[in-house]
Amino acid sequence: MDSTSLAKLTEAFGSLPGIGRKSAQRIAYHIVNQPMEKTQALAEAILAARKAARRCAVCCDITEDELCPLCKAAGRDRTTVCVVENPRDILAFERTHEYRGLYHVLHGVISPLNGIGPEELCVKELLHRVSDGTVKEVIMATNPTVEGEATAMYLMRLLKPLGITVTRLAYGIPVGADLEYADDVTLARALSGRLPL
Amino acid sequence: MDSTSLAKLTEAFGSLPGIGRKSAQRIAYHIVNQPMEKTQALAEAILAARKAARRCAVCCDITEDELCPLCKAAGRDRTTVCVVENPRDILAFERTHEYRGLYHVLHGVISPLNGIGPEELCVKELLHRVSDGTVKEVIMATNPTVEGEATAMYLMRLLKPLGITVTRLAYGIPVGADLEYADDVTLARALSGRLPL
Repeated sequence: MDSTSLAKLTEAFGSLPGIGRKSAQRIAYHIVNQPMEKTQALAEAILAARKAARRCAVCCDITEDELCPLCKAAGRDRTTVCVVENPRDILAFERTHEYRGLYHVLHGVISPLNGIGPEELCVKELLHRVSDGTVKEVIMATNPTVEGEATAMYLMRLLKPLGITVTRLAYGIPVGADLEYADDVTLARALSGRLPL
Repeated sequence: MDSTSLAKLTEAFGSLPGIGRKSAQRIAYHIVNQPMEKTQALAEAILAARKAARRCAVCCDITEDELCPLCKAAGRDRTTVCVVENPRDILAFERTHEYRGLYHVLHGVISPLNGIGPEELCVKELLHRVSDGTVKEVIMATNPTVEGEATAMYLMRLLKPLGITVTRLAYGIPVGADLEYADDVTLARALSGRLPL
């Protein structure tokens, strides 16, 4: 092989998240071997999705309209907002069918090392939406990482003075896991967060 | 989310080899979040590679010119042809730096269950290229599967009457593997294929 456009395509795929060199190669060969219509459809799907994508005016989730389907939905509890790092986290919560409130997507976490401050995230949109008093509780559902924690603390300090209840997802042993293999930090958090039976 | 163009993009990526539902979702969100130029570059790379791709007139490998770089190269041994199932197999052989002959890409294996007969593969191109008498040996390097074996046997029967030496890659214990964990068939093949030290 070594044909330039194929090498370029392999490189382009390799730069996508979760695709390594071997997978990229396999995909590139798949694409040049498939019928022209399928290849064109893929290229068009990429451009169409990118062009249509915008952020919901309320929650900053990726959508095609002014408001996302969740913010438009009638049956949701508008007093509770769950703050997540990215749109995929919303899908994870929705799969549980346990949460009836709304969401807010930060599109990242505060990370000084990577030059990401609150201005780069959808923080002012969050403050704006809670300013009318409808929202009573904000659940911090950033990831349990150092940066996720720091972001949750930062937002908590901004929201508490507004009279909003700020909560954090519970830490503990994952359901179905073996205590023996739980890491120390998780186990310590599970202990300190114990609830009466 | 649930926006149609994003769902379509996720589906399009999910249909590529080696990309599952979760990866496809992650990639789709990555694409709608990245700058428009990068998205456009990806779409263009896909179309450019597909449009430029053609099969080498000699070995059927994917290339952009009449002949692939390997068939054009001066220093290769033109008397030996290694028959492989797909272009990625060539890359694997080239990485070994041990083989100096040429290749022939079948673009699949004979698989009656999937409706793939010799006519769907680059078999007539192989017969055509060996017809001038330059090629003395054809190495069957199809995969060690039932279909790969059957294809190698089929080609062997076509090539032997032309006075060409037909060989098959050696079966045996992979280098560095533990005998204890070798499967029965591989071990039996390693035994029957033993060589004098």
